Amino acid sequence: MQFQIDATSHHKTRACTIKTAHSTIQTPVFMPVGTQGTVKTLDANDMLELGAKIILGNTYHLYLRPGSKIVKKMGGLHGFSKFPNSFLTDSGGFQAFSLSKNTKQHEDGIMFKSHIDGSKHFFTPQSVLDTQYDLGSDIMMILDDLVALPNTDERIEKSIQRTTKWAQEAITYHKAQQEKGIGVDQNIFAIIQGGTSKKFRQMSAEQLCSLEDYDGFAIGGLSVGEPNVDMYKTVEWTTDFMPKDKPRYLMGVGTPEDLIENIERGVDMFDCVMPTRNARNGTLFTTFGRVNIRKAEFKEDSQPIDPACDCYTCKNFSRAYLNHLYKAGEMTFFRLASMHNIHYYLTLMSKAREAILADNWIEFKEDFYKKREK
Amino acid sequence: MQFQIDATSHHKTRACTIKTAHSTIQTPVFMPVGTQGTVKTLDANDMLELGAKIILGNTYHLYLRPGSKIVKKMGGLHGFSKFPNSFLTDSGGFQAFSLSKNTKQHEDGIMFKSHIDGSKHFFTPQSVLDTQYDLGSDIMMILDDLVALPNTDERIEKSIQRTTKWAQEAITYHKAQQEKGIGVDQNIFAIIQGGTSKKFRQMSAEQLCSLEDYDGFAIGGLSVGEPNVDMYKTVEWTTDFMPKDKPRYLMGVGTPEDLIENIERGVDMFDCVMPTRNARNGTLFTTFGRVNIRKAEFKEDSQPIDPACDCYTCKNFSRAYLNHLYKAGEMTFFRLASMHNIHYYLTLMSKAREAILADNWIEFKEDFYKKREK
Repeated sequence: MQFQIDATSHHKTRACTIKTAHSTIQTPVFMPVGTQGTVKTLDANDMLELGAKIILGNTYHLYLRPGSKIVKKMGGLHGFSKFPNSFLTDSGGFQAFSLSKNTKQHEDGIMFKSHIDGSKHFFTPQSVLDTQYDLGSDIMMILDDLVALPNTDERIEKSIQRTTKWAQEAITYHKAQQEKGIGVDQNIFAIIQGGTSKKFRQMSAEQLCSLEDYDGFAIGGLSVGEPNVDMYKTVEWTTDFMPKDKPRYLMGVGTPEDLIENIERGVDMFDCVMPTRNARNGTLFTTFGRVNIRKAEFKEDSQPIDPACDCYTCKNFSRAYLNHLYKAGEMTFFRLASMHNIHYYLTLMSKAREAILADNWIEFKEDFYKKREK
Repeated sequence: MQFQIDATSHHKTRACTIKTAHSTIQTPVFMPVGTQGTVKTLDANDMLELGAKIILGNTYHLYLRPGSKIVKKMGGLHGFSKFPNSFLTDSGGFQAFSLSKNTKQHEDGIMFKSHIDGSKHFFTPQSVLDTQYDLGSDIMMILDDLVALPNTDERIEKSIQRTTKWAQEAITYHKAQQEKGIGVDQNIFAIIQGGTSKKFRQMSAEQLCSLEDYDGFAIGGLSVGEPNVDMYKTVEWTTDFMPKDKPRYLMGVGTPEDLIENIERGVDMFDCVMPTRNARNGTLFTTFGRVNIRKAEFKEDSQPIDPACDCYTCKNFSRAYLNHLYKAGEMTFFRLASMHNIHYYLTLMSKAREAILADNWIEFKEDFYKKREK
């Protein structure tokens, strides 16, 4: 993976370029979520038309169904889904923790039952990499030890230590595998934990970031219900302890506002189900804030969702038609809404990048908030 | 509406051209069903890419939601959905009869309760045309008096008489409206009833087809559970009493085999939910018969659904990927499957037309069945 900083602007904002074996990714970047090998309601060509250079796949889901061996046989995620640009895959640990009942964290991994058929599985720092080698993702996330928050300092410290231990095992394993010719084009990111405590975030960041073979670092365990201000503070503290010369990825975040605030705090990469999940409940993102297309006021509105938007949906269809399709329960709606929302997120990121390149961040951010006040 | 017969071949097969204000339709033609103003899972541009020259909208659904007045304000079905080619709309009578509880047929119309909110409505031969003027469809179907089958001869005869009476009222009303400048570019088809009885079909066809101002005639009341052989016989009898110089439309039919058999019996136009509904349960149509993509044998199959097919889905995605998307419940599947199935139906019709133009029907039909035996 090649990484370079193209420009910096106000505070910790930065515009970078990441080159993987499959695409050149310009940051700040939002990665649409394709949990089961497709971004919901869309396909690989839709993602290309939307300009996505990287999407996310969920290891937990793909491991269970169709099974990573099948994905490997079909040419990995790229061959299977036909999306030719980059994939990032998570470790599966978060879903094993959140979707499964009877999850047990051991010193050497996570035991869980499949949410599909109840079968028992064990994820280790090594096994989740094996799965991701099969998936062929460009960026692999390592297994981390998650804790429910709030929790005792003791348990949080334990989680940080275990995450570091697993990270050491993972990078050792990965280097050994690469020497055998496995995962040679695949990159590996570690995940900083530590809740919303400055002390713990510093501890986790310092431990992990000293592992120099990692290609990038992520901030995990945020956007899990804490107040926004706590998330922003935590990112502010954490990025100070992350190396400048590697990508910084804030996992599972967030709203358009969250993205802007965290770019300012030095984050390069984001992923979130928000644009696609909200599309499916009729909430559309625009330059002037969120639009609930279900509202009766749109029944006879011949305008596009956002007159300033040049996405496929806005270029072709009216609010009235979308309001009708939503109310009528037509799947066509979910697709059109997902395209609009992903286009909004990707466009927001490319405008943020332009502002950083032009050293124009403060004006950009002011304008972003001003338009939403109307 | 302009109509011409371009060629005839074996038995009653014929290839015709129908010109409406919105498109030139070459027959035999299959009209994909867009009940609520969109073909399920797809949009107007998808239908254009698939080459559809005409799609069907359901008056009952659109009358209730979003309401035909709203559709009219948005530029009719063409402006609302952005599909620029032709629309055919049914009268709404069939759905009022089948979807609604407490339906009552009166001498002058059908009283029913909305399946959405239970509100009461009354469809008359005139009111369903008013609704279709608002929808702006290119071909409007008139209200007919439906009877559940089997039924007494007395009730069937009553239905035929009432259908004829309503047809007389409808055409009188339509001509009067057209003189006032309403529905000038819209065409009107009557619907022949009579169950599977030769006597009754002849009676209905003779009565209706003597109404010379109709632009075309449909055969209704078939494909409602009767054996295929009865459907084919009934069509055979009925088309003999239908004028040669006007389009013949067999409503709600059917399987690929049904289309082939009824083209041979002189039918020009078809519609059916089969390609879209079957797509949604994982049944895909191919030159070699139906494929159930849910089957485990496709889990690792890298071939397209039909190697002989050049649809978007077959050009891009494997059976393995589609099998996975179906099992994972991804909406993306329903779209890809719908595109394939509609492409299959439209391609089958254009190949049937080619065979008629080349006076090659018997070979075409033999080949159609032979490929399916394998």
